[in-house]
Amino acid sequence: MQETDFDVLTIGNAIVDVLARVDEQFIAREKLVKGSMNLIDEARAEELYAHMGPAREVSGGSAGNTAAGVASFGGRAAYFGKVKQDQLGEIYRHDMKAQGVHFATPAAGDGPATARSFILVTPDSERTMNTYLGACVNLTTADIDEKVVKAARVTYMEGYLYDRPEAKEAFRAAATIARGARRLTSITLSDSFCVERHRDDFLDLIRNRIDIVFANETEIKSLYQTQNFDGAMQAIRRDCPVAVLTRSEKGSVIVRGPDTVEVPAHPVTQVVDVTGAGDLYAAGFLFGFTREMPLARCAQLGSLAAAEVISHIGARPEVNLAVHAKAAGLL
Amino acid sequence: MQETDFDVLTIGNAIVDVLARVDEQFIAREKLVKGSMNLIDEARAEELYAHMGPAREVSGGSAGNTAAGVASFGGRAAYFGKVKQDQLGEIYRHDMKAQGVHFATPAAGDGPATARSFILVTPDSERTMNTYLGACVNLTTADIDEKVVKAARVTYMEGYLYDRPEAKEAFRAAATIARGARRLTSITLSDSFCVERHRDDFLDLIRNRIDIVFANETEIKSLYQTQNFDGAMQAIRRDCPVAVLTRSEKGSVIVRGPDTVEVPAHPVTQVVDVTGAGDLYAAGFLFGFTREMPLARCAQLGSLAAAEVISHIGARPEVNLAVHAKAAGLL
Repeated sequence: MQETDFDVLTIGNAIVDVLARVDEQFIAREKLVKGSMNLIDEARAEELYAHMGPAREVSGGSAGNTAAGVASFGGRAAYFGKVKQDQLGEIYRHDMKAQGVHFATPAAGDGPATARSFILVTPDSERTMNTYLGACVNLTTADIDEKVVKAARVTYMEGYLYDRPEAKEAFRAAATIARGARRLTSITLSDSFCVERHRDDFLDLIRNRIDIVFANETEIKSLYQTQNFDGAMQAIRRDCPVAVLTRSEKGSVIVRGPDTVEVPAHPVTQVVDVTGAGDLYAAGFLFGFTREMPLARCAQLGSLAAAEVISHIGARPEVNLAVHAKAAGLL
Repeated sequence: MQETDFDVLTIGNAIVDVLARVDEQFIAREKLVKGSMNLIDEARAEELYAHMGPAREVSGGSAGNTAAGVASFGGRAAYFGKVKQDQLGEIYRHDMKAQGVHFATPAAGDGPATARSFILVTPDSERTMNTYLGACVNLTTADIDEKVVKAARVTYMEGYLYDRPEAKEAFRAAATIARGARRLTSITLSDSFCVERHRDDFLDLIRNRIDIVFANETEIKSLYQTQNFDGAMQAIRRDCPVAVLTRSEKGSVIVRGPDTVEVPAHPVTQVVDVTGAGDLYAAGFLFGFTREMPLARCAQLGSLAAAEVISHIGARPEVNLAVHAKAAGLL
């Protein structure tokens, strides 16, 4: 084993979440699809914000949440993502560093503002995301710090990055560096609509450059265009060394070569906001995986972290996950 | 009765709260006094922020919270406060307007950034506030919109405004306009240290220009420099037409001339963060008072709103208080 500085490097869209509770009528009136992630432009962002109720701001972004989760478990985490030099950008950087995540991607000096996602939480605790990518569009291969990629056991990236050609190139460059250094690469499929937009690219990527894929049930079905979960599971088994498939309250399934490991969901007293569930599952799993724990334990850590984050508003852990996992007998 | 546009106008420091959980060691290490509100300069704000863990941003400011509470009860609320034209200022304005509060004070085009308060919540749910006043220092008499003051049944102001000479002048100008229009004036003493700083001014103000004073137990004792609550209560009875004295879990006492009304605290399942308790109590009380409800009912509405806000992180209501009060049989 070479020397390593980071357990997990994550790369993604650096986004401040703007969270508000809304009723079902609001979702209908704004013609939104509940549970989806929509990309919106600046004009729509302003319009939607004007229609929304009072909100709170919490740093988010899928891969950013995962890095925060890894650090909360006590893992060594790094993050690449693009903010602007503005107040929300400062908040984003603060929250990362304060969580102990290495985050040195330079902020953009001009161009669009730091990204935000209007996350509308309905009474059923489901979240509907409306993301204005803002400064994220400036993430390019120039932001892929080769030293950090080489120093990380796993480089984990959001499928969302594929929505911008420059970010997609950055993603591919990072994967190439990681594999060249005999490091592991990982992707989350992010969202079923994102899979729709990039199915062929994702399949090609997974078959050729990815060691660990994360997907929820809808995403993996969308990838293989099937309604049959078992069929999709067998397909990903052939396509990728490790696949981590999450199924909400049905728990998760890990497939690695001939092995299949099923783990139930961690119990939750009250689901308040499902934002970040997948991101924190990935954090727990990758923390365990980079510490060479058995797959079942990795999945349990993922479930524990997901259960914590859905028990409150916001997609970042509110407790120290290492302490929490120890109390649950998992560490 | 003249025609009226607003039930309650509140005037205060427009502040975005930056909320983080900390342990007792952090409070000690940073040499803070638990439960207090400290004014800090920009350099100290940067230092403290660098030491703090990940945070969330929620619009706050004592009188701003009260205006939001009045609006959430279905009252017609207006607010005067100064933000800068920056991202946090936009967030602040959005949150006010989205809550239905009339907020038209122009933002400062230059000078310091929108104010923020680093609110550190310890495991005992107590909050310690560290406020960088930023753009608030630009609130002057020019921001006192005479039409709005004349149109409001009650003009309610933070004692905190007395910490800046210009804001103090604005406060006094608003009180003069309100009384000239035969409207009611109200003040909250804000904080016992604030009372220490401005005791003589506050006494003079209360005796001559204020109709309703709000204070918690420590504040009213500090005002009259006594350890005896009953003594302080008799003193304020002579000095002000209506005094509303809050005593945390011991409930509240209202004194009006010869009348004394005691109301128990509203039950709370779990106290999470006491930030905003006094502000929301004032909101409920003033909503009831401007609707000419009996004092006991006003106090019950205040207690209900305080109980809601301390059951979660952040100083703004997370539910519709009108619906909440109806469910509790108070409206």
